[in-house]
Amino acid sequence: MPTINRYVDISTVERETKKDYIDRHSPFIQCSTRAKAGTKFPVTVRVGTEYSHPDDAEHYIKSIQLYDGQTLLAEANFPPGTLGGTGQKSQAEVTFNVVPGGTRMRLTALSYCTKHGLWECDPTEVTVEAAA
Amino acid sequence: MPTINRYVDISTVERETKKDYIDRHSPFIQCSTRAKAGTKFPVTVRVGTEYSHPDDAEHYIKSIQLYDGQTLLAEANFPPGTLGGTGQKSQAEVTFNVVPGGTRMRLTALSYCTKHGLWECDPTEVTVEAAA
Amino acid sequence: MPTINRYVDISTVERETKKDYIDRHSPFIQCSTRAKAGTKFPVTVRVGTEYSHPDDAEHYIKSIQLYDGQTLLAEANFPPGTLGGTGQKSQAEVTFNVVPGGTRMRLTALSYCTKHGLWECDPTEVTVEAAA
Amino acid sequence: MPTINRYVDISTVERETKKDYIDRHSPFIQCSTRAKAGTKFPVTVRVGTEYSHPDDAEHYIKSIQLYDGQTLLAEANFPPGTLGGTGQKSQAEVTFNVVPGGTRMRLTALSYCTKHGLWECDPTEVTVEAAA
Repeated sequence: MPTINRYVDISTVERETKKDYIDRHSPFIQCSTRAKAGTKFPVTVRVGTEYSHPDDAEHYIKSIQLYDGQTLLAEANFPPGTLGGTGQKSQAEVTFNVVPGGTRMRLTALSYCTKHGLWECDPTEVTVEAAA
Repeated sequence: MPTINRYVDISTVERETKKDYIDRHSPFIQCSTRAKAGTKFPVTVRVGTEYSHPDDAEHYIKSIQLYDGQTLLAEANFPPGTLGGTGQKSQAEVTFNVVPGGTRMRLTALSYCTKHGLWECDPTEVTVEAAA
Repeated sequence: MPTINRYVDISTVERETKKDYIDRHSPFIQCSTRAKAGTKFPVTVRVGTEYSHPDDAEHYIKSIQLYDGQTLLAEANFPPGTLGGTGQKSQAEVTFNVVPGGTRMRLTALSYCTKHGLWECDPTEVTVEAAA
Repeated sequence: MPTINRYVDISTVERETKKDYIDRHSPFIQCSTRAKAGTKFPVTVRVGTEYSHPDDAEHYIKSIQLYDGQTLLAEANFPPGTLGGTGQKSQAEVTFNVVPGGTRMRLTALSYCTKHGLWECDPTEVTVEAAA
């Protein structure tokens, strides 16, 4: 409360409108599975893969957060209208760059739609190799 | 994932350190139970009631969000050090002002500690009366 | 670049539409002129005094920041529609609570309108008395 | 007030410490000079080119904002410690993706250091071609 909606593999979903609804709201993490300690590591988060979300002022993707376990690494905030504006659809996308320590990261992302609330993705495991 | 920790009534908790841990991380909503549609309605969110949280640069309360159901109403972000700084303890607190429509609100708050992650409180129900 | 618009005393402005334009975009700080070191000190920032701003999805007050000199103390972010929504006018308002150290603060606020950019107010001087 | 520090071409600056100070705080925009209306356009903002900034909890780069003229396009917020942490230096960097309309953009970026305040760069002009 607020509910956090979780991604469901849309290939298991039958109804086209539901596939679209889930996909266009879910954040997806794109990054390498191996990082190097002390070296900048790019992590892209995109909301939607096959489907796109409106960018209307009354209904848009407002923010994307990136976590490593319980720890917030970075967040991006968007005003409405910067992804094409009224009547357009797009996929909010941001690339953060983190410098990992430790030996692994467990990345998750959280996105927020002004009409349909919070959405999170399954964690992405990253192995962090010691600096050379 | 990230886990959202939920407030537990600390009178039911035995260990003093656990009472302290739960209380100092939980957001508490203070507001009237009745609002008037179209009229500014103040909602205070304070992190902690009986206990206080460090404001060290490595460990502080970074943000407070206020939701009505799934809908984000407002959020506040704090840098470290503005609640007394290293070695001090305090309770992050912010008063938002929303102008409700509809007939009721179901307010919840989410706070984020840079060491202990996300915390939420039980919802507060507010009845919204029609404008005179 | 971006320009930061500064408040101008509207009693010196002749045209009513210009008075309205300046007032409804300018952040105003309300706080005591004396604070106590180590004690929570409330600072209210309200955008507009005599005039109000739309809260339309395409045109609303998105954020308020509070600075002490060059140092950010706190910031609040608002989605559109939480101050009454389309066709309504209101004044965005938030009360932060800071715990001052030092001997004085020089507070300023910055607000952002999604159509008319950044606005700041004149600094408010606060004397900080030593803790008893 | 707060002052917005502006980038100065560091090849014109003599003192090495001043070169370092200016470079490590200034946001730099990297993007193509031509965009296509309705098509996602990546814009990278990096704080520092030749020099790097601490990522200590008491002293780090907290945020990066991207503007087109007076209009905020996107902002990123960082907690301390995600660029290597205490004793490390790095360059905060984020890639936003905007979908331009209109015929040109005039991009600027604003970065905030928790010790040395706000910094902006010179505008980058982007020509926006009509969608095919």
